[in-house]
Amino acid sequence: MKKKRYVNLTLFVLNCLVLAGLLPAQDSPKNVIVIFADDLGYGDLACFGHPAIATPHLDQMALDGQKWTSFYVAACVCTPSRAALQTGRYPIRNGMCSSRRRVLFPDSKGGLPQAEITIAKMLKTRGYATHAIGKWHLGHLPEYLPTSHGYDSYFGIPYSNDMDAIRNAPKGKAKFWEPRIEYWNVPLMRDEKIIERPANQHTITRRFTEEAVKLIQVNKKEKKPFFIYLAHNLPHVPLFVSNEFTDRSRAGLYGDVIEEIDWSVGTILKTLREENLADDTLVIFTSDNGPWLTFNTHGGSAGLLRDGKGSTWEGGMREPTIFWCPGLVKPGIVREMGSTLDLMPTIASVTDTKLPQNRELDGFDLKPVLLGQTGKSPRDEMFYYHGEEVFAVRKGEFKAHFKTKTSYVGQNEAVVHDPPLLFHLGHDPSEKHDISQQHPEVTSRLAALKKTHEAGISPGENQLIKR
Amino acid sequence: MKKKRYVNLTLFVLNCLVLAGLLPAQDSPKNVIVIFADDLGYGDLACFGHPAIATPHLDQMALDGQKWTSFYVAACVCTPSRAALQTGRYPIRNGMCSSRRRVLFPDSKGGLPQAEITIAKMLKTRGYATHAIGKWHLGHLPEYLPTSHGYDSYFGIPYSNDMDAIRNAPKGKAKFWEPRIEYWNVPLMRDEKIIERPANQHTITRRFTEEAVKLIQVNKKEKKPFFIYLAHNLPHVPLFVSNEFTDRSRAGLYGDVIEEIDWSVGTILKTLREENLADDTLVIFTSDNGPWLTFNTHGGSAGLLRDGKGSTWEGGMREPTIFWCPGLVKPGIVREMGSTLDLMPTIASVTDTKLPQNRELDGFDLKPVLLGQTGKSPRDEMFYYHGEEVFAVRKGEFKAHFKTKTSYVGQNEAVVHDPPLLFHLGHDPSEKHDISQQHPEVTSRLAALKKTHEAGISPGENQLIKR
Repeated sequence: MKKKRYVNLTLFVLNCLVLAGLLPAQDSPKNVIVIFADDLGYGDLACFGHPAIATPHLDQMALDGQKWTSFYVAACVCTPSRAALQTGRYPIRNGMCSSRRRVLFPDSKGGLPQAEITIAKMLKTRGYATHAIGKWHLGHLPEYLPTSHGYDSYFGIPYSNDMDAIRNAPKGKAKFWEPRIEYWNVPLMRDEKIIERPANQHTITRRFTEEAVKLIQVNKKEKKPFFIYLAHNLPHVPLFVSNEFTDRSRAGLYGDVIEEIDWSVGTILKTLREENLADDTLVIFTSDNGPWLTFNTHGGSAGLLRDGKGSTWEGGMREPTIFWCPGLVKPGIVREMGSTLDLMPTIASVTDTKLPQNRELDGFDLKPVLLGQTGKSPRDEMFYYHGEEVFAVRKGEFKAHFKTKTSYVGQNEAVVHDPPLLFHLGHDPSEKHDISQQHPEVTSRLAALKKTHEAGISPGENQLIKR
Repeated sequence: MKKKRYVNLTLFVLNCLVLAGLLPAQDSPKNVIVIFADDLGYGDLACFGHPAIATPHLDQMALDGQKWTSFYVAACVCTPSRAALQTGRYPIRNGMCSSRRRVLFPDSKGGLPQAEITIAKMLKTRGYATHAIGKWHLGHLPEYLPTSHGYDSYFGIPYSNDMDAIRNAPKGKAKFWEPRIEYWNVPLMRDEKIIERPANQHTITRRFTEEAVKLIQVNKKEKKPFFIYLAHNLPHVPLFVSNEFTDRSRAGLYGDVIEEIDWSVGTILKTLREENLADDTLVIFTSDNGPWLTFNTHGGSAGLLRDGKGSTWEGGMREPTIFWCPGLVKPGIVREMGSTLDLMPTIASVTDTKLPQNRELDGFDLKPVLLGQTGKSPRDEMFYYHGEEVFAVRKGEFKAHFKTKTSYVGQNEAVVHDPPLLFHLGHDPSEKHDISQQHPEVTSRLAALKKTHEAGISPGENQLIKR
């Protein structure tokens, strides 16, 4: 205990000297890695309270970095959520959301428009090596692929791993319970070429990880700053896991899959340490939307949050998020708001890169919070989109629902709430106790905020309904 | 990072030497402190996943010690749960549970029978100083008080802090929302004497903590091994908090109360360190039952677990539990089962004390798990009592419900399940997906286990219905 205390004391003194201007602050880290899980629930990591799934590497990452407990994606399903992360813009602005077709499918003709600037494209202006690995889902036609959007390379599955289901596969949801490679004819691509079909999904988490490790090593050797976007295709159903992780978890197949992703994160952080890049690389871990609850034990858990993927309840859009960079990020728990919309401005700030001009951006620079310079996040509001519509608004701790639609089976129509439902997310993170009657002035304020936001939006041409 | 790694390496080498028999293992710790919260939910601590409540001291305690994610109390309400902790026996054995009157009340004439042996009484055989602080709730008549059950001293409120409600207090549940000292005429006792009535509940957490600190210091000075049972009266409604913790938490009054308890835990661990007793004192933190959900935002959260206080769903009986002793407990997360029933045998083992003879005990010695000698808990089953009845049985990861009754308002009758509901708690910790149809052989096995258990029980004379 004493030695630990001395270490803390030393760090404290060093920090004081830096703050007092007596020592130079460390350089901005040069590299950025975003690790994006698919359908991972808010409650699925041990450090976010799961009792059965073992995630020692993510737990340690959270301890050495910042665990954000109120971090949002900008849409409750895959395609729009990813478009928002890549561009720092609500997906309505670039036509990447729709209530008719909620995501892109193998027959889609649309994708992220060329006029959009991704994080990779932004970092290219600073000479970064840029790499996309894993799930893309922003268009599988050549002009929409990562290599057309600022990435030097791509290795992955261009959409969800349950798409391209073959005709002979067992029908209905039961088919997801017995994952067989041959049931899903999904392609694995290298840049613009399909190199494997059907992809051997048992080994994708491992292969994506090996690709990331190789790219870290190559760029280190070539002394190039790099950006890696590693978007796992899992734990989206169908659940696949490698032999090494089969039957390891107390939580069954779903747990096995998460524990393999945990291994992947550990492997990447270990590589950064071995390459002496840990202090120079910001690693961000989060997920694209909440757990797919309709798949029972093959879907994850939103913990104490309500509902899951596809809904604008907290369980659909609040994600287990960790920022890590020993040389930059001040360890702790951050309970302030953040969003994947903020990644572009934050990464711009951390890498000293100019943000894209001549367009509306919806993000905030979180760097001061990462550095521990402030406990207050610049983000104080969030708009919860469902397709093209704002279903809910959060400002401070208050959240108003104007419409709701559960992600559970059985309810197909959205319910309109007039007056809107109102929850205090600090007092009631599970959104159980509507307080709209007690605080009509708050609901009015949130309704006005919604109107102002909507008035400032020019929807882009819809990409999801193009076939 | 590097210094930390060296510390870890040093510890590792020392551990290896101990295991190899080249260095003597440390002596068994002499002192034991049990910190018992009231109605704290499984999901209410940051280290168990709460997004808004800040519990830095409990988080650190969990990191330096063992966080148990599958730790049970032996009853889903207060009195029987406490009886089980004190005696290591299912409360049916000593008449301390009832479905007619589920706990003791100020008009009760019963209490924990004199023939029962508490942990304190057991430790008296080894010359321990023994102290009870806080809520007792095992009988308020002189023959049932802590000082009649092996404790040298008592300072606390003998039952729940919502009892003795005065006649003029606002009626119904609304009264709990505005806590005023004068609404509840509850007594604060020193040994067998009432010293304050109504108790100033705003200061009880602070005063209980100060009492514990004083007792640690006095016993250290007098070189006496000690056992302190510190049972907070909070966060049971009505919620009271001291001035220092008022309006501090994002989670409102409930969060303020938990954050004051967190401060209390931190103060006690700090005192142990200052007195150089940390390596010689086993501290156990847990709660008596799940959160009281009917009190809305004044009740806590069971996290991803189903239901709460008063029910035999996991949320009613699985508790956020931490074992801490730097000189003994191997840090980590334990996902194996444990129970407050195991505290007596574990404490006996850790203190080298003989267990009570001539009686059935229901606990297991968890010391090998605490020491990290095994990852396997000796406990592999749990019987979930509701009043005098076994409502559910867990064996390994399977749990069968023979009867259920929710703790939510509106359902007054228990529902009989035949065949029983069956859940796999590893795959489905939220008990959402009944798998009894797929595994009839498991339900049969659990039904047989229930029968065998029940056949081995001789119920004691009921204490809760005596008026």
